[in-house]
Formats: sequence, C-alpha cells, structure tokens
Amino acid sequence: LHSGQDETFKDSFEALHEYEMGQAYAGLPDHLRSVAWRLLDIELLAMAFDNLDSNDDETIALLLEMPPQKAVQVLRSMYADNEVDLLQQLSSRQLATYLSLMPKKEAEGVRNLIDYEEQTAGSLMSTEYMAVEEELLVGDVMQLVKRHANEAESISYVYVLDNQARLVGVISLRDLLTHPDKLRVSEITNPRVISVKAGDDQEDVAQIVADYNFVSIPVTDDDEHLLGVITVDDILDVIGEEAVEDYSGLAAVNVSQVDDSFWQSAIKRIPWLVALLILGMSTATLINHFDGLVQKASILAVFISLITGTAGNAGTQALALAVRRIAIGNTKTPVKTFLSEMLTGVVVGVVTGLAVFLIVTFWKHNMELGLAVGLAMMIAIMVANLAGYLIPVAMDRLGLDPAVASGPFITTLSDLTSVLIYFSVAQLFISHFIGK
Amino acid sequence: LHSGQDETFKDSFEALHEYEMGQAYAGLPDHLRSVAWRLLDIELLAMAFDNLDSNDDETIALLLEMPPQKAVQVLRSMYADNEVDLLQQLSSRQLATYLSLMPKKEAEGVRNLIDYEEQTAGSLMSTEYMAVEEELLVGDVMQLVKRHANEAESISYVYVLDNQARLVGVISLRDLLTHPDKLRVSEITNPRVISVKAGDDQEDVAQIVADYNFVSIPVTDDDEHLLGVITVDDILDVIGEEAVEDYSGLAAVNVSQVDDSFWQSAIKRIPWLVALLILGMSTATLINHFDGLVQKASILAVFISLITGTAGNAGTQALALAVRRIAIGNTKTPVKTFLSEMLTGVVVGVVTGLAVFLIVTFWKHNMELGLAVGLAMMIAIMVANLAGYLIPVAMDRLGLDPAVASGPFITTLSDLTSVLIYFSVAQLFISHFIGK
Repeated sequence: LHSGQDETFKDSFEALHEYEMGQAYAGLPDHLRSVAWRLLDIELLAMAFDNLDSNDDETIALLLEMPPQKAVQVLRSMYADNEVDLLQQLSSRQLATYLSLMPKKEAEGVRNLIDYEEQTAGSLMSTEYMAVEEELLVGDVMQLVKRHANEAESISYVYVLDNQARLVGVISLRDLLTHPDKLRVSEITNPRVISVKAGDDQEDVAQIVADYNFVSIPVTDDDEHLLGVITVDDILDVIGEEAVEDYSGLAAVNVSQVDDSFWQSAIKRIPWLVALLILGMSTATLINHFDGLVQKASILAVFISLITGTAGNAGTQALALAVRRIAIGNTKTPVKTFLSEMLTGVVVGVVTGLAVFLIVTFWKHNMELGLAVGLAMMIAIMVANLAGYLIPVAMDRLGLDPAVASGPFITTLSDLTSVLIYFSVAQLFISHFIGK
Repeated sequence: LHSGQDETFKDSFEALHEYEMGQAYAGLPDHLRSVAWRLLDIELLAMAFDNLDSNDDETIALLLEMPPQKAVQVLRSMYADNEVDLLQQLSSRQLATYLSLMPKKEAEGVRNLIDYEEQTAGSLMSTEYMAVEEELLVGDVMQLVKRHANEAESISYVYVLDNQARLVGVISLRDLLTHPDKLRVSEITNPRVISVKAGDDQEDVAQIVADYNFVSIPVTDDDEHLLGVITVDDILDVIGEEAVEDYSGLAAVNVSQVDDSFWQSAIKRIPWLVALLILGMSTATLINHFDGLVQKASILAVFISLITGTAGNAGTQALALAVRRIAIGNTKTPVKTFLSEMLTGVVVGVVTGLAVFLIVTFWKHNMELGLAVGLAMMIAIMVANLAGYLIPVAMDRLGLDPAVASGPFITTLSDLTSVLIYFSVAQLFISHFIGK
C-alpha cells in the first residue's frame, strides 16, 4: 500500500471473493487498514463487512476505527440484518451518534429492527427483498428483478402483496424465467406462501427452512404485513450456534471460542467446576453423615463410585434426549413423553440393577451385599433418569434455556441422590452382611 | 380416495408445497397409498420423494411398495443425490434389478455416484447443474437457463467449462440478469471459482459454504473436471447431522431418534450403561484393594465422590473442547494446543485443589487431611483434563470419529485414575490423620 501501488491494491481487492475481502480487510496490519478504508469504495467496504461475523466485537472495532461519517456510509450500504447486528453492539451514546448521521426515515427503520429481541426471526431478517402487486405481468416483474438484483439479498423469490401490503403469495424466479412475459403474475403466484412471524424463535424458523429446502423465507407481523426476509446463510449460522450452545451446555464449558489462550480457557472453566464442587460438598457431607455405617462395613465404600457413576451416566442420557426433544419440537404429548421416559428409566434401572446384583454377588460371594448394591443401583438410576428428564423440561416451562442444565450439573446432583439412596438401602441390609 | 374423488385428490395434492407432498404421501394409510401411487404423475411422486429424508429406511420402504418399473421411473425423475441415497439402502440384488431397468448409460452414472464414500462431497452432490463454454453471449446463456430451469436443482449459478470440461469459472444468475444480452459471458465470468473435490469431507464442505454464504458449490475430480454441485439444503442437513453426532457422543446416547418408544429407547441406552458399568467395576476393585486404608480411616470414603465427580467434570470440559476443535479445524499447531491444554489443566487443577484444601481443612479442622484431599484433587483434575484432551485427538489421528469417545466414557475412566491418585496420596499422609 505504498504510493503508486494504490490501484494495484484496489484491483486485487476487487478481484477477491466477498468472503475473502472480509478476511483480507480484517487481516491487514492496523496502519495499512487505515489506508485501505480511505482508498476503497464504500460498496467494497460494505461487502467486506457483510462477510465478517456481524456478532463479533472485533468486527465492530474495525468500524469504530473510521470516522463516524464513513462508518455510517459503510453500514448503510450493508444488508440490514448485518447492519443491525453491528449497531446493537454499540453503546447507546455511539448508537445515537450513528443514527443521527442517517436520513431520519432510515434511522427510524433501523431503530425498529434493533428493537427485535435476539434469537427471534425479526433479529435475523433483512429488509432488502423484492415485492410486487398481483396485477403486473411477468415481463414487468422481470424488469423489476433486473433493476433490483444487486440490492436484494436473495433474488430467488418475489413476494406478492395485496393493496394493504399484506403478504398473499410468492413467485419463484424459476417460474418467472420459464413463463412468457405477457402472462399476468397472478397466474404463477403461489398463494400457499410459508412465512414466519417476527417474534418467532430462530430455532423454529431454522427447522422450517431446513424442512422445506427454502433459500429464503418471508417474515411478517401479526397482520401478515411483510417486514423482511431471512436468507439461508443466516439459517446456517443459527443451526451452527444452537448446536454449539446445546453441546456447550452438556459439557459445562463454552466451546464457541476454541482459540482462547490457556489462561482465558481456564478462567472460563473454573467457575463451573467450583460451583459444582460446592454442590459436590453436600454429597461429601452426606457420606460423612453415614460414617458410622462405613466404619462398620468398609466394603460399602467400594461401590460408591460405581453407583454414582452409573446413575450419572443414565441421567446424562436422559438429559441429552430431553434437551434435544425440546430443541426440535416434541411430537408426543407431555404426559406421553413423561410416561415413556419413566418406563425407560424403569427398564434401564432393572436391567442394570440386575447386572450389578449378579456381579457383586458372585464377586463377593455375598448375596445380601449384591441385593443391597443392585437395589440401590436400580433406584438411583430411575431417580437420575427422571431428574435428567424433568430438570430441562421444567427449565423450558419456566422460559429458561434447558441447555444450561448441563451434564455435569445433572451428574453432580445425581451423586447426591445416589449416595442417599445407596446408604439408605445399605442401612436396611447392614445386619445381613456385617461380619461376613 | 373413493371413485370419483380421484381428481379432487390429485388437485389438492398438486396444490401442496413439495415438502408437504412428501409428508402427506408418507402419512397416507397403506391402502390409500397404493391407490395414490397409481393415480399421481411420476413428476409429483418424484417431488414427494425428493422431499422425504433420503437416508431414512422408511422412505425406501415406500418405494419398495411399488412395482420396480414404477419405482425406477420415480427414482429417475428425482434429483441424483436423493436417488443415490435411496439406492444405497437397497440390497445388492434389489439394486441390480433397479439398475437393469434404467438406460445403460444412466445406470452407469448412478453406479459411479453410489461408489462415493459416505460423508464425502461426492455423496452429497447432484448432477443437475448448468454449465456452458466461455464463447457464448449473455443472451444465449439466459435462453439455456430458461430451458433448464425446471431440471436444475439450483439456478443461482451457471458454471463455465473449458474445451476439456474443466471448471474454469462461474457466472451468477444475478450477473446474467443485470448485463446486456449481447455481452460475451467471459466478461462477467468469475474465474476465481471456489470448488471442492469429490473426496473432500462433508464437514469441510459445509464450513466453506457457511463461510462464503454460497447457495451451491461445484464438485470436481482431481483434474478439475466438473462432476456435480452440492446445494445449500444438503449442507443444512450435514450441519444438523454432525451436530447431533457430536452431541450424542458427549452423552453416550443416540439422540437422533427422539420419538422412539420407551422400549427402543431403553434398548439403545442399556449397552452403553452396561459397558461403562464394567469399566466402573475396575474402579470398585481398586477401592476394594485399598480396603485396609478405608478401615483405618473411614473419613477417606467421604471424599471419593467429590474427587471422582470434579475430575470427571474437568475431563468432560476438556473433551468437549477437543472434539469441537477437531470438528471446526484447529488454527494452532498440535504442540501449541497440547501445551495450552496442559497449562489450562494445571491452572484449573491448582485453583480447584486449593479450594478443596481450604474447605476440607476448615470443615474437619485437619490440615493434613485437607492437604491430602486437595493434592489428590489437583492431580486427578490434571490427569482427567489431559485424558479428556488426548483421547479424542488420538482417535482422530487413528482415523476414528472422536465423538465416539463419549463424555460418560471419559468420566468413568477418570473415576479409575482419580481413585488411584486419591488413595495413593492418602497413603502418604495416613500417619498424619489417623487417630485425629
């Protein structure tokens, strides 16, 4: 980027893929980037920013390097969904400055978009769509498509509105291309248009797009007025994010930043571990309470980890299935699911308990001990299974994200109940295996 | 579907969305479905089947209800990627029958597609794409697009081939629409076409499509000959599948079938639980080996579950991050990652060990016991953390899917090492806290 090489830089930047523009721009050393944003057209800068992660605070930092006037120009040339994602990360003061630099009507529109709650359809949509009224001819609409092709985020569909701007149908570009120009578009309009509401959860929207194989889906308000469209690239991000969230929850660690330094990584893991450690202390206190029993029969100590471990595993399985069922939508009634999960717990508990009974009886040549351990295992598994199922379901009912009820939380909680069950059962049998 | 209502059925079926056609067809009672496939056009049936899950054995069962001649007609009208997915589920005998009913050249093409390994780009691609040579004019290509719009799976891009059928560029439909008919397409061809190889892993392909916001991506052989395209709807499925696999692995339960009956669900969970139970038995045996120690100091039993539980949690965190890092591609060198993970383990171990030391010392007014438990906790966490990191990495190196090293496997394994560490450390300190 030395003098005289400006044109070369501009040309080679322009030849890049949009995604590569974003990567290249973000990757420039600071002093070159401050030359670059002066040099490059607003349109190219907007392309680069449209292809960076608009929820990442590094992206907004790149915008804040420029004077507000320039930054606002870039934002205005971006797709509305990305623009709004970036603006949401500004302080309210910065946001006010930026909005004051936009035409009043546009600022108002942007503010409306900012108001949509995160993780809803409204927060994903962009407003660069194509819509027509039904009276037009195919040829007219094609002219319109050609004129707006470079602004619209997706040109695969043109939406049809009635005279009150309500969504009444959809025309695919495919149909426009394969029908004669003189035909009225009402002839090829599909009135069974699938749309979502602005307040719908993004996971539900992703499910519909995946099921129907759409490349974009329209978003309306409660009165069917078209507000925007969500394109499939945003849906890809949603599916990825949701998967990472559920996965992180199951492991009690945020896996979204795998490139953290060892220090950052440790800082993120320790709070969970220490919180669980404190919960684990209650299990230790409980065992301490049964110290008299252990003193009489030290053999009881042998099976503590077997019972807590196995019950924890069963609880984790039930948890994972419950979280997943909530994520993709349940097809059975809550009562049916509950009964089914109860029965599963019973079958799993009985089979595993029986296996433990046999193993312990033959190992220790002590049927009473085998009975105590087997019975405790059976009950502990049923309880852990039920907790693994009920906790995420209850959290979901309370409007909390069930993925937060992590696997380690369930196993640590199940340690407590398992130990209680184990020693209570052992107490009943103790007279039979002391002294053996 | 009684006589006389055939036309009504046909019309209402035709008015459905393609996805709904699939659902409706699969949802018909058996006796009505056998009327339906006689009644409906091959094209409509193919649409319905294109929108059912082509990897599901229920979908192939629906095809097998028809006579082979009819089934083959439907298959041939489907997109090649779905057709091949279905054919792959047939026995080799059934496959031979079906292929024999196709024109020879087509059967050969299908057989080539079947040969691509699962989870590669080749297994996802369809062969219904549009390609041209560079000498054409924009208007000519538009004519071609219009002619083939209904066959191609995606019309967003037209690929440009050289005279040896090698992929040399791509033209977007957007550019075709916004440039004059008389222009040579070489003027608007983007020579920086991003493509994948047929043998590439589907996860890598998904990452590229998500990064670049493509709606389709071309697939070539090693000599850049265009073989097919992968559309974004298949990528959505890949991202979903991979997420479910990783998630299932972490919980040691296959969560892909949440609608199983309680019996099926139990059958799937029991093998894992019993296998882990047997691994858990070795921990029990180990504690049994230290029975003399427990008899002398029953207080040791109190902290077994605290140490195994916390180390297990730390191991699960390390595992989840390692699996995720493998899935999305590591940006650091293996040595750096290893060192970073080691250091994280040390920091997490020291902090948690210190917390335990303080808690136990104050609770039991016994610093030696606190020291023993805290030290054991520290070492157990470091070991579990390292195992949680190393096992999936080693599995990946051996060409195995790291997600199979499940969370419960790591916690059960870590129970064993934690108990060994705990009792070994306790043995060193035993003289100090016996009799206190």
